[in-house]
Amino acid sequence: MIGWDAVDRADGMAGASRLDARLRTVRAELVRLGLDALVVTHLPHLFYLANLRASAGMLVVTPADVHLLVDFRYRTVTTELVAAGAGPSGLRRADVDGSYEETLRRVASDAGWKRIGIEADHLSVRRWQWLEGALQAGITATVGLVERLRMRKDDHEITTLRAAGERLGPVAAHVLDRVAVGSSERELAAHIEVALRDAGFERPAFETIVATGPNSALPHAHPTGRRLVAGDLVVLDFGGVHHGYCVDLSRTVCVGRAGAEARRLHGAVRAAQAAALAAIRPGIRASDVDAAARAVLAEHGLAEAFGHSTGHGLGIEVHEAPRVGRRRVEGDAAMADSQDPLLAPGMVFTVEPGVYLPGVGGVRIEDDVLVTEEGREVLTRVPSELRVC
Amino acid sequence: MIGWDAVDRADGMAGASRLDARLRTVRAELVRLGLDALVVTHLPHLFYLANLRASAGMLVVTPADVHLLVDFRYRTVTTELVAAGAGPSGLRRADVDGSYEETLRRVASDAGWKRIGIEADHLSVRRWQWLEGALQAGITATVGLVERLRMRKDDHEITTLRAAGERLGPVAAHVLDRVAVGSSERELAAHIEVALRDAGFERPAFETIVATGPNSALPHAHPTGRRLVAGDLVVLDFGGVHHGYCVDLSRTVCVGRAGAEARRLHGAVRAAQAAALAAIRPGIRASDVDAAARAVLAEHGLAEAFGHSTGHGLGIEVHEAPRVGRRRVEGDAAMADSQDPLLAPGMVFTVEPGVYLPGVGGVRIEDDVLVTEEGREVLTRVPSELRVC
Repeated sequence: MIGWDAVDRADGMAGASRLDARLRTVRAELVRLGLDALVVTHLPHLFYLANLRASAGMLVVTPADVHLLVDFRYRTVTTELVAAGAGPSGLRRADVDGSYEETLRRVASDAGWKRIGIEADHLSVRRWQWLEGALQAGITATVGLVERLRMRKDDHEITTLRAAGERLGPVAAHVLDRVAVGSSERELAAHIEVALRDAGFERPAFETIVATGPNSALPHAHPTGRRLVAGDLVVLDFGGVHHGYCVDLSRTVCVGRAGAEARRLHGAVRAAQAAALAAIRPGIRASDVDAAARAVLAEHGLAEAFGHSTGHGLGIEVHEAPRVGRRRVEGDAAMADSQDPLLAPGMVFTVEPGVYLPGVGGVRIEDDVLVTEEGREVLTRVPSELRVC
Repeated sequence: MIGWDAVDRADGMAGASRLDARLRTVRAELVRLGLDALVVTHLPHLFYLANLRASAGMLVVTPADVHLLVDFRYRTVTTELVAAGAGPSGLRRADVDGSYEETLRRVASDAGWKRIGIEADHLSVRRWQWLEGALQAGITATVGLVERLRMRKDDHEITTLRAAGERLGPVAAHVLDRVAVGSSERELAAHIEVALRDAGFERPAFETIVATGPNSALPHAHPTGRRLVAGDLVVLDFGGVHHGYCVDLSRTVCVGRAGAEARRLHGAVRAAQAAALAAIRPGIRASDVDAAARAVLAEHGLAEAFGHSTGHGLGIEVHEAPRVGRRRVEGDAAMADSQDPLLAPGMVFTVEPGVYLPGVGGVRIEDDVLVTEEGREVLTRVPSELRVC
């Protein structure tokens, strides 16, 4: 293959006026920061701001226009995007023949930009050092500018994520029917991914996790050839991409029989998840949701067994802001606040507490939630009782 | 899901002595550069140097030991790695509770390192700026240090890649039998991914491309619901991961009948690929392989229709060094040489010329090649004649 991702000309894209609205917010930030241009290098941002899904590309947003730097592979698609009126207003294409940095230098020089912002989280030290030497402009490192905007989903995104969540329900039901003694982790993972495509998802949102028996105690188990035996805990963690947006679900079941320890762990995690879900509403901090889950697990004596965060934002990326975890204590308060935002309507994230006992097994239960004006809306509607398959 | 990749405890890993040999080469570079430590942040390098496949982690190589910084999710796996003697000698684990950068500051301060190298291509501007303020040490940006080492595969890697290439042959045969008028691109892509898993691959190496009819003119087409009609050109581009290593194959076929234009394009690309393969031997430049393919397409009047590079390195990543493309003309000669290495035994890359005529269709033919002492060994053995399905 010749690139990481692929062009998508499917329908379901945001309309041009929606892109323009997003760009208006970015431009307001440019003005606030006194920048002539922002160089956008994070590929999900190219999709968000210009409907381009590509494995390479660079977008430059200025107060007046948008320059899309693309190489040979995406020229046809970009031309079609403009012809179809599916890109943002004022989109100008710049063809990359050598490197992206060389092309940026040419475009910046022609335009006479003097203060250029870059995305500090999405530019490597190497590219930064080259640009510092090459550009006839001051370079400002910006942090989280587009990410903060993406954290609150707009109507188009909410519609898309809601549809994706609905689509995941039947996949889960179908998959849970297939869990049985004798199946291997790899077979179940393959079955899940076929079911995702059959349900109309473009692709799995990440590598499907099927972790059985002792493997379920590894939060990141990779499917192996291990075959299920009676009494196993089975963690299933999978998701799909629908019109470019990711949803993500985990359920834990038993096969054959459910032992007392399996029931105890599952009950504790389910109660922790319920507490976290119930806490969600605008105005609290993301870390408050995490704390609600953690408190329940502590009551069950399982505080140490829950090592990861309670959740992560979902959208164009399967891991994006907001992080729903412990509030960081080091650093200053402003930094801690920026990583632990106040919840606001339009935010979408997972709620997925879990417990992991090495040598015994693990349980994780995960749903996707939209923050609403009143509280929350769970986007994934799949029963979470301990099921014995 | 709670992370991007997954832990792999499967067999097929490099032995500890092999890891130590790789680390010896890295250490020689440290001494040459006068560094006390190299901070390795590129995750494929953690697999290469320490057998850890993780979605997060940091490895610090010093002349005497190796520090692996891991968060909660990978502690069990790291402990097992060390207990099983499957990690490199002298491996020390440092637990990350806050951020990786904070943990690095603590470890570096305890060890008293004064000159620390980072990977300029794999550290963001933001992390770099934080470390510059926080570390009591000088920071040196290194470029391509581990990548250059990885470019020449060692015996373990060659054995793994050869086995992966053999495994791909039956998948291709099986898949080509399924191409027929009426199938959709998405159905064929799903079928390919099931066949990859059935053949024992851990997962697809990238998102499978099935591009039919006019879509075949897009080098990066995403599978759509389009159904095949007689006369279509069909580009199939897929690959699998075996024991952590990627292989990658493309074939282009016709359905129903092969028109004169389809035969012409396919014949030209096949001749271009044959010329590129025949050119491969130690001592020539990667760009010479590209030039061989490009010359044949130019003879057929198709120079403009071939816009991407002829190939890319394969290994732990599906895109790695060496890039097999046009020699870059901008910049100094040393930079151009570093991006256009002399071929040497042990290098593995794809050879995949293609032509793309918007509105008409496209053809790509791709195989994976190992550079040997004598010349080359093609790792993917699948007929490439124009097949009419």
